[in-house]
Amino acid sequence: MSTNQLDKKSQAWSALFSEPMSELVKRYTASVDFDKRLWQADIEGSLAHADMLAAQGVIGADDLAAIQRGMAQIRSEIEAGTFEWKLDLEDVHLNVEARLTQLVGDAGKRLHTGRSRNDQVATDVRLWLRGEIDALLPLLAQMQRALVSVADQNTETILPGFTHMQVAQPVSFAHHMLAYVEMFARDAERLADVRKRVNRLPLGAAALAGTSYPLDRERVARTLGFDGVCQNSLDAVSDRDFAIEFSAFASITMMHVSRLAEEIVLWMSQNFAFIDLADRYCTGSSIMPQKRNPDVAELARGKSGRVYGHLMALLTLMKGQPLTYNKDNQEDKEPLFDTVDTVRDTLRIMAEMVEGIVVKPEAMERAALRGYATATDLADYLAKRGVPFRDAHEVVAHAVKTCLQRGIDLAELPLAELKALNPAVGDDVQQVLTLRGSLDARNVLGGTAPVQVRAQIARHQARLS
Amino acid sequence: MSTNQLDKKSQAWSALFSEPMSELVKRYTASVDFDKRLWQADIEGSLAHADMLAAQGVIGADDLAAIQRGMAQIRSEIEAGTFEWKLDLEDVHLNVEARLTQLVGDAGKRLHTGRSRNDQVATDVRLWLRGEIDALLPLLAQMQRALVSVADQNTETILPGFTHMQVAQPVSFAHHMLAYVEMFARDAERLADVRKRVNRLPLGAAALAGTSYPLDRERVARTLGFDGVCQNSLDAVSDRDFAIEFSAFASITMMHVSRLAEEIVLWMSQNFAFIDLADRYCTGSSIMPQKRNPDVAELARGKSGRVYGHLMALLTLMKGQPLTYNKDNQEDKEPLFDTVDTVRDTLRIMAEMVEGIVVKPEAMERAALRGYATATDLADYLAKRGVPFRDAHEVVAHAVKTCLQRGIDLAELPLAELKALNPAVGDDVQQVLTLRGSLDARNVLGGTAPVQVRAQIARHQARLS
Amino acid sequence: MSTNQLDKKSQAWSALFSEPMSELVKRYTASVDFDKRLWQADIEGSLAHADMLAAQGVIGADDLAAIQRGMAQIRSEIEAGTFEWKLDLEDVHLNVEARLTQLVGDAGKRLHTGRSRNDQVATDVRLWLRGEIDALLPLLAQMQRALVSVADQNTETILPGFTHMQVAQPVSFAHHMLAYVEMFARDAERLADVRKRVNRLPLGAAALAGTSYPLDRERVARTLGFDGVCQNSLDAVSDRDFAIEFSAFASITMMHVSRLAEEIVLWMSQNFAFIDLADRYCTGSSIMPQKRNPDVAELARGKSGRVYGHLMALLTLMKGQPLTYNKDNQEDKEPLFDTVDTVRDTLRIMAEMVEGIVVKPEAMERAALRGYATATDLADYLAKRGVPFRDAHEVVAHAVKTCLQRGIDLAELPLAELKALNPAVGDDVQQVLTLRGSLDARNVLGGTAPVQVRAQIARHQARLS
Amino acid sequence: MSTNQLDKKSQAWSALFSEPMSELVKRYTASVDFDKRLWQADIEGSLAHADMLAAQGVIGADDLAAIQRGMAQIRSEIEAGTFEWKLDLEDVHLNVEARLTQLVGDAGKRLHTGRSRNDQVATDVRLWLRGEIDALLPLLAQMQRALVSVADQNTETILPGFTHMQVAQPVSFAHHMLAYVEMFARDAERLADVRKRVNRLPLGAAALAGTSYPLDRERVARTLGFDGVCQNSLDAVSDRDFAIEFSAFASITMMHVSRLAEEIVLWMSQNFAFIDLADRYCTGSSIMPQKRNPDVAELARGKSGRVYGHLMALLTLMKGQPLTYNKDNQEDKEPLFDTVDTVRDTLRIMAEMVEGIVVKPEAMERAALRGYATATDLADYLAKRGVPFRDAHEVVAHAVKTCLQRGIDLAELPLAELKALNPAVGDDVQQVLTLRGSLDARNVLGGTAPVQVRAQIARHQARLS
Repeated sequence: MSTNQLDKKSQAWSALFSEPMSELVKRYTASVDFDKRLWQADIEGSLAHADMLAAQGVIGADDLAAIQRGMAQIRSEIEAGTFEWKLDLEDVHLNVEARLTQLVGDAGKRLHTGRSRNDQVATDVRLWLRGEIDALLPLLAQMQRALVSVADQNTETILPGFTHMQVAQPVSFAHHMLAYVEMFARDAERLADVRKRVNRLPLGAAALAGTSYPLDRERVARTLGFDGVCQNSLDAVSDRDFAIEFSAFASITMMHVSRLAEEIVLWMSQNFAFIDLADRYCTGSSIMPQKRNPDVAELARGKSGRVYGHLMALLTLMKGQPLTYNKDNQEDKEPLFDTVDTVRDTLRIMAEMVEGIVVKPEAMERAALRGYATATDLADYLAKRGVPFRDAHEVVAHAVKTCLQRGIDLAELPLAELKALNPAVGDDVQQVLTLRGSLDARNVLGGTAPVQVRAQIARHQARLS
Repeated sequence: MSTNQLDKKSQAWSALFSEPMSELVKRYTASVDFDKRLWQADIEGSLAHADMLAAQGVIGADDLAAIQRGMAQIRSEIEAGTFEWKLDLEDVHLNVEARLTQLVGDAGKRLHTGRSRNDQVATDVRLWLRGEIDALLPLLAQMQRALVSVADQNTETILPGFTHMQVAQPVSFAHHMLAYVEMFARDAERLADVRKRVNRLPLGAAALAGTSYPLDRERVARTLGFDGVCQNSLDAVSDRDFAIEFSAFASITMMHVSRLAEEIVLWMSQNFAFIDLADRYCTGSSIMPQKRNPDVAELARGKSGRVYGHLMALLTLMKGQPLTYNKDNQEDKEPLFDTVDTVRDTLRIMAEMVEGIVVKPEAMERAALRGYATATDLADYLAKRGVPFRDAHEVVAHAVKTCLQRGIDLAELPLAELKALNPAVGDDVQQVLTLRGSLDARNVLGGTAPVQVRAQIARHQARLS
Repeated sequence: MSTNQLDKKSQAWSALFSEPMSELVKRYTASVDFDKRLWQADIEGSLAHADMLAAQGVIGADDLAAIQRGMAQIRSEIEAGTFEWKLDLEDVHLNVEARLTQLVGDAGKRLHTGRSRNDQVATDVRLWLRGEIDALLPLLAQMQRALVSVADQNTETILPGFTHMQVAQPVSFAHHMLAYVEMFARDAERLADVRKRVNRLPLGAAALAGTSYPLDRERVARTLGFDGVCQNSLDAVSDRDFAIEFSAFASITMMHVSRLAEEIVLWMSQNFAFIDLADRYCTGSSIMPQKRNPDVAELARGKSGRVYGHLMALLTLMKGQPLTYNKDNQEDKEPLFDTVDTVRDTLRIMAEMVEGIVVKPEAMERAALRGYATATDLADYLAKRGVPFRDAHEVVAHAVKTCLQRGIDLAELPLAELKALNPAVGDDVQQVLTLRGSLDARNVLGGTAPVQVRAQIARHQARLS
Repeated sequence: MSTNQLDKKSQAWSALFSEPMSELVKRYTASVDFDKRLWQADIEGSLAHADMLAAQGVIGADDLAAIQRGMAQIRSEIEAGTFEWKLDLEDVHLNVEARLTQLVGDAGKRLHTGRSRNDQVATDVRLWLRGEIDALLPLLAQMQRALVSVADQNTETILPGFTHMQVAQPVSFAHHMLAYVEMFARDAERLADVRKRVNRLPLGAAALAGTSYPLDRERVARTLGFDGVCQNSLDAVSDRDFAIEFSAFASITMMHVSRLAEEIVLWMSQNFAFIDLADRYCTGSSIMPQKRNPDVAELARGKSGRVYGHLMALLTLMKGQPLTYNKDNQEDKEPLFDTVDTVRDTLRIMAEMVEGIVVKPEAMERAALRGYATATDLADYLAKRGVPFRDAHEVVAHAVKTCLQRGIDLAELPLAELKALNPAVGDDVQQVLTLRGSLDARNVLGGTAPVQVRAQIARHQARLS
């Protein structure tokens, strides 16, 4: 076996170079510390490439067998933790390839025929990300199921619905939970859309221009389960849209998480006390002995920043880059990896925590009784009796003002006074002023009436099972 | 006709309020200056709502007729520029509604039955954005057609393909143009995916909880051409995912524009001189008489920042917001409006400019001759003759070093010297060292060989016609 | 008076150009719609330049007089609204200069001697921004004074101090207000630091390289009140650090605003009801008659997104730009202008609103009694009597658990039970368990004890008067 | 020695908790993996706190001695790599404290008297960041010195100055280098300003409200070298401005790096070939044998995205956070740490690489001869002879047009033709049309004339030595 540039990388990149990289440069440009997590995709991609090379007669059957044997060995070494990762070999690709050549000789050196690290890394990242997406989709479903399960037990639990954090109208806690189900369902839709564009094969683009070997790119795509082949080699090696699009999905998902987390933190606050969390989701204080803090929700809320930041990092990275591959692109990995880790860990823990929420219905209902939550019902009552809505609104505003001055709720106004508000007020007015009456009345598709909410729960359960 | 809260808004919001908004607050919170651009969607949405109210028997046929008559009048007034927009009436919705009531009396006051500004504004923005998306999709196609048309004339024009801005391998200018076609094609795919989630109807969610009126939300959706109905009222009024998702699409599109713009600026630079632009796309200098600057491309590149910024603004806006509608959400409009304007204007002008590019093939080819663009071809030549690729790579690196020292290209090395490099070198080696030979050799799906590029052009032409 | 390129701009940029800009390009590249707000700075800068040109003998005294006369006229025209802004003339600079030449002939044409729009616009923006900074500094002081004034009336008002939104320890509302004073005081410090780097003169850099005229740049700097002169002409025309740095200041300030706004929204919520706002700072609902929403605070919170976005836009804009001036830089203005407007309007309205806060001390104190706010005091009490703090913490955690089970506060535990917790507990223990006792005890520099808070108020009052 | 909550953390946070944190929660909320890098600051801060506690009589001299002894031991253990970091103990603070208590018993438990992790972590991060700032300032100076040193050798090296990437006017390479010196000098100014606000002591704020112990906060500040003490305890524990402000500094610095990197990449491109880099700063290609890529510059350019992202992460993190400490704040560390690492490594490697730039003066000068770089000189020449500048500009535009058509430079126009342009043209005109003449002519403060540039170099050398 002859020597080659990989063996001598510690001395110089190739015969063209008169000196090795400086140690500082080596550390600054090496990616093996973080891209080694791509090793499975790297091996999988190489095997599909080798299989195709053999099928096309570019390498021999014996070469293919040697490569397969070598890769199996490398796989065991990495899994066993005995594989020696070398900074000198820059990245996961050269580490694996150099070891392969060590193990199987010239066959290993033939593996790189017709490809380049440029199309190889793009393939690896896509393969890896597709796997992560396929692991995230069930987590998004689990999160939805957790919310639906809490909803299922709370279709009659009355919560003050807020706008502007002011009591607006009564809703059920179930209905509130289902709002988040809609959000995470949209996230899953978006992720499925992202997957379509992740799952295209760059391999075969070689360095940038394609290759002079008779590659069968569609065979490789089939072997690796890609939906299709990138149709332009220059685009194939320089495209990082899929990473940005994934980060945009992740940012929106984390935004949803931040909203839910904000509410959990508020609801746990003594001033709401709407819910409780099990001790295993809380932490204490090193100084204040009474504290039980909803750390998980706070941290999840804070982690939205991290993911937004990664999205911005990737967009900045690609801004103004001329074609084709530039080393800048190596910076795509750490933000993407951390985004995946953050979303996965956060969804998992939030789903688990949501399922463990202890609802305090009395506190919720008590809060709903503050703030004249049924004022709209009174206005609607008048409007249904022929008072133009805008006038009805004004009549009720007067009534609320009176109640405020007397420190009572609308439901506590004597019937006579209610009837004095407007000739349209009848004896049946008081029943529309109860929380339950208000809830039941909102019997429109997507509304908070228990019958509607139960229908939604059934829909979600069917969808998610 | 009785008075109501809209007539008296300059005095107080409603009977509940003891004083009007301060002038400062009025200016700070009013949105009519920018949201009046939603007027068409607002009227369209109101008419669909009124039609449904009448069909459901909530308002009378005479009310509907009055509302339709009033809206027709308002439409003419706005189109004629005679409509008086009032800051006191805060936003487009109250401005239109107040005028309607002025024109048709109590029927106008009945229009707001069963809805709230919360679901109304969400509906208006979605309607408006859907219209803008439907105008953007053809612009993305136009951009692609412009690029394909330049490609069509340049399948044989040789350009140095760069990686790391170093000459890498020869490609055709057509192939380079098609890389951008792929990008804008993906943008169009993404935009179609965004449209699905934009095109859902929030109306009927009312303030947050649904309404006690027997609305037929699906009828409204059909009337307005929505694909479906938002299934949860709390989510319906607080969801701004569609705006964020659109901005993420727009950011990626502008990133693509920034890359193309960067290249146009470079190619126009005297050090490249690969292309020229017609005078009508250039500007001069107030001090330097010789200047012809590619301002459009630079500005387009710079505008990526603007759109990235809006994406970040929207993500920040929604971070940690508790349900449901909070006034923060009013801040969704200006970033979204400006994003739409920027992407539309930029695509239009870039497509036009691209079509007017004057290609300078000699300069491109001359540049491709610098930098040993066919070195990979020599390595491939060796590999095909049995030299393991990694060894072939090393042999060629030596040859390049020699050439560099002598200031010549690989193609200029005497045959004898080429043969001395490795026993595998034969008499036919020199033809693989020409630019044309290199181009033709990359005859793989997605590669730069003219036959492949012409096939891609045909595919795109069929797709885009 | 001869014709020149400005007169003929609608036909072509200069004799070098064979056609005018396309209408689309004109609209896309023109900045006069937004940069005309720089007109005062533009005239001021031109007058200083002309004055220096005359002093250096580059133009005659009669030219100077003509320029001064023309500029006076232009100033009146703009103020009177009769100045005709032309899109054909691209920007504020050419509009003013063309009008000047119309008014005073050749003297006007001499004004541009030794300068370029590149250094001119950089000078204008800096002059304008310096003026805005000088208007913002008093607003930051006003905001601090408003907070100090509320603090001054509330040194004894007990508020539950929260960590993790859980009741932690009692603090005074004054102390809480002063936390925000610290933030805005830091903002003012930062802004003063920004001002130093804004206030340097680029004029004299000309297009990029300096000029062959014997300019006295330091004279111009003195005339215009600049602290110094940009020392490198290439940097002078391409530097936009000052805009980014200002936006970073503004982002942090808006972040502070968002925190205060979040608290105001929470405190206004019925579940807190800690404060009330005057009607003039609230808005109602178009559907819910009982609503009084803290719109201003919500909008201010939302506007943090807008300013963060502008910061990101500017950073993206400058990323990877080669020297020197590129047209991208024109995109610096709108984000900067909107940032200034947003911060100014927000500080003004928030300061006014803060001053009008109605504090509800009973609600605050009632809330402080929930959550064992004095548990740390008990731990400290034990520690002072020799129990290691970590053990004391554990003892109190036990006590809180007991109280929780019995639904009482620590202060309600009988003395005997308290003494049974640990031998170190004495007869004086109960006084440390009161809110007032806890407050008074935190008598350390920066602590919440009223004596400390009053000292801070005095310090701030002295500093801000 | 009694047991306490730290010993039992794996079972439950404190006696108040009925179960331990779930494993998932433990991993999600633990920070020890990344915050252990604060260990030196943590120990230093603890020693200063203990010293003050002893001086104030809060703990005994023997306690202090024990703490000092224990900390010395811990320091050796960490340095030797034998310290056992435990995830169960969450963070660096509890890990160190638990080990201290193990080593020295009750004295260790007394250390936490009068402080909380909330003020402790804020103190640690500030101490650590101050140290990093003090290491960055010399790196910024080193970067400037490297640039000045290249400048010093190139005051006569002519480079085409570009605006819009179009040849504008000749400048010297020295002058161009000095533009970057200005940028990094401003960065150093900004960093010094940031340091002022980093270097304030939060310790003594305790959990949020101050403490009931008689702490001498100013003594601790003196011991630790802080410039002052945070004046409000609520602000002290929740303020992260310093991290954001540092990240804003870092973003601007990285933006400057990205501009320099962009130019290095361009200059290395065969189409410029203005410079060369030593092999030790370049990498090769796995497929293209001829490649020598400026990876370091590209990666540095790309890393601007990473730092921008971290800034956005921190701003998002703090948006809308109510007072005081929330767990979200734990997310401040990783972005800050990575920002520091990135800026430090990037400045170090860029400074080293800049010093090794090989300038190719002929290529630069050749490029300056393309593009009519002296056209402005001709216009100035005319203006100095009385032709209004705007007319002169037009005359020269005509001349350039003529030259373009004939493919020659202005300097190649026969004298007769030059004189025919305008009566003001004299026999001396041709000397102003040379590159050298143009360079020398820009003899204004900040201009590119060698005499000016040498003065700037001398100023920088004096400043940086």
